[in-house]
Amino acid sequence: MPQKKRTTLRELAESIGVHSSTVSRVMNPETRHLISHEVVEQVLKAARQQNFSPNRIAATLRTKRSRIIGVVLPDIANPVFPPILRGIEDELAKKGFIPLIANAEGGKERQRFVIDQMAGRQVDGLILATAGRKDPILEHCLEEGLPVVIVNRSEGSGRASCVVSDNRLAMLLAVTHLVELGHTSIAHVAGPSDLSTGYERRLGFLDAIKAQGLKKAPSQVVESKAYSREEGRAACDALLERQSGITAIVAANDLLALGCYDAIRARGLRCPEDISVVGHNDMPLMDSVAPPMTTVHIPLYEMGVRAATLMLDSLEDSTASKINIVLRPELVVRESTIAR
Amino acid sequence: MPQKKRTTLRELAESIGVHSSTVSRVMNPETRHLISHEVVEQVLKAARQQNFSPNRIAATLRTKRSRIIGVVLPDIANPVFPPILRGIEDELAKKGFIPLIANAEGGKERQRFVIDQMAGRQVDGLILATAGRKDPILEHCLEEGLPVVIVNRSEGSGRASCVVSDNRLAMLLAVTHLVELGHTSIAHVAGPSDLSTGYERRLGFLDAIKAQGLKKAPSQVVESKAYSREEGRAACDALLERQSGITAIVAANDLLALGCYDAIRARGLRCPEDISVVGHNDMPLMDSVAPPMTTVHIPLYEMGVRAATLMLDSLEDSTASKINIVLRPELVVRESTIAR
Repeated sequence: MPQKKRTTLRELAESIGVHSSTVSRVMNPETRHLISHEVVEQVLKAARQQNFSPNRIAATLRTKRSRIIGVVLPDIANPVFPPILRGIEDELAKKGFIPLIANAEGGKERQRFVIDQMAGRQVDGLILATAGRKDPILEHCLEEGLPVVIVNRSEGSGRASCVVSDNRLAMLLAVTHLVELGHTSIAHVAGPSDLSTGYERRLGFLDAIKAQGLKKAPSQVVESKAYSREEGRAACDALLERQSGITAIVAANDLLALGCYDAIRARGLRCPEDISVVGHNDMPLMDSVAPPMTTVHIPLYEMGVRAATLMLDSLEDSTASKINIVLRPELVVRESTIAR
Repeated sequence: MPQKKRTTLRELAESIGVHSSTVSRVMNPETRHLISHEVVEQVLKAARQQNFSPNRIAATLRTKRSRIIGVVLPDIANPVFPPILRGIEDELAKKGFIPLIANAEGGKERQRFVIDQMAGRQVDGLILATAGRKDPILEHCLEEGLPVVIVNRSEGSGRASCVVSDNRLAMLLAVTHLVELGHTSIAHVAGPSDLSTGYERRLGFLDAIKAQGLKKAPSQVVESKAYSREEGRAACDALLERQSGITAIVAANDLLALGCYDAIRARGLRCPEDISVVGHNDMPLMDSVAPPMTTVHIPLYEMGVRAATLMLDSLEDSTASKINIVLRPELVVRESTIAR
């Protein structure tokens, strides 16, 4: 079949009398600021008129769907993601779509690279589990015209639909449980504050402490650098170092809570006899660790299903308004918490 | 840029006076048998002469690389895969390649669909963690001209390079450890026998039992339907039902071993006091379950690195001979095994 003729970058540049590198810079949101506002407007107008597509994404959207949704994970080794992925996968399958998964560990630069690679592969949309609270990557996707849904985390601008669990309620459930067990000196190993989960759970923790009428001191919260067992251990060490008398710790996720187990054990203390620990997520195997972990169960599979549904909806109607879906978490009491 | 003219399927069909559906059937290895041998030969010859590429893969290989390697996993929820993926990812990154991951749970049909989708996305090659011992999917990839490397599992034909751990040695290590602890009635919860890991570990177990001079009875092995905790529990239940006096179980992987924990506990028995259990893989968290699991540690990260290296090598030189890399496992003794 003969290929349909498309305006090339060079032709576009010639039509308005600028160098092709100028057009290229305008088309890339990262370099657009290097070009004068006037020229940017001129290039974008000509591009629209001549139906120029700076990359293959737009072409795909005009013609046919790839039926592939990219899913970008911040850390493929975190067991919280497989259940989310299954939900995404099952829901997409109903409409003949499949997810392709990329691991975007290692910072924004790598995330951007991964997303550009996916976009170049003509994915129909992206489900991001990576989004930060103010996320340049989200910006980038939106500028590329890629439909985006955010899962597990959220972002502040409301420009993409999100599916999250209620982080504040989760912390209220955890703190209330500990207070009911008689704990009064409760600390928090927080997640990174540039992520909505870290930020909101910390706020939720502090609100809950206040609501329970307990005194809060700045030393009751230590922020971890990443959601990992190692960082959880380091943060818990710092916490126990700087403050004595802590009888319970609420960790911002299960990996951090496992790190707390490690730190507590390394000091010759016992969980839960000396220090109770509560996790968050109820990721797989948390019922089988020693001690079985009291944690906040979030509906991971359902989060995936909802994210996929939002994505399919937005592919059907790109003008659909952006929504946040907030799911309800539940406390699962196991053996890592004990009455004081 | 003007598109280079390519022979279309229709043009090819017209040039030899057959219907285009005939060409289409010949080009699809699944339907080729529907066409007479004579016509098949005629079509393939004309295709070669006219440089006809039945799909985009060949075109990509002739022109430029996508620098994307597809990685197909049998079960994304199995914690054994993230370390392998990290090895793949780190090694590919050195050459500017990235992996795109697909979950191919749910049988051969779905695997084939996933692989076709990846092939259509112009991946440069595929690393399969899914291969069975006689695998139609591998066949399909090879016919499509896609470079393939198999990781963790192996296949029998020698047509693709594989990176595996020494499954027979693993079982010898496990059985010897149990015999040294005084166990004489040792059973095996085997993996599916259509997978090389299940097949070889079962043979390795039986060899080791023989080498240790223990009697073997057919009832000492129960095959599980899948590598999952649930199937491990079911298989262990069947084992304990049909034979009394078992004091130790070697499971073909850690998920199956966790299922054995469940089955033992459900019968009011204790691990290791009543029954010792050995796993295989040393997947993440096996040091933290209760009891911490004695298991065979396999170099998962290195397997990934080696698989990526083999892939990059085969992209550089497609005529390179196929090799098997067999890595050495080690027994990690924790608390799920005890002297008899």
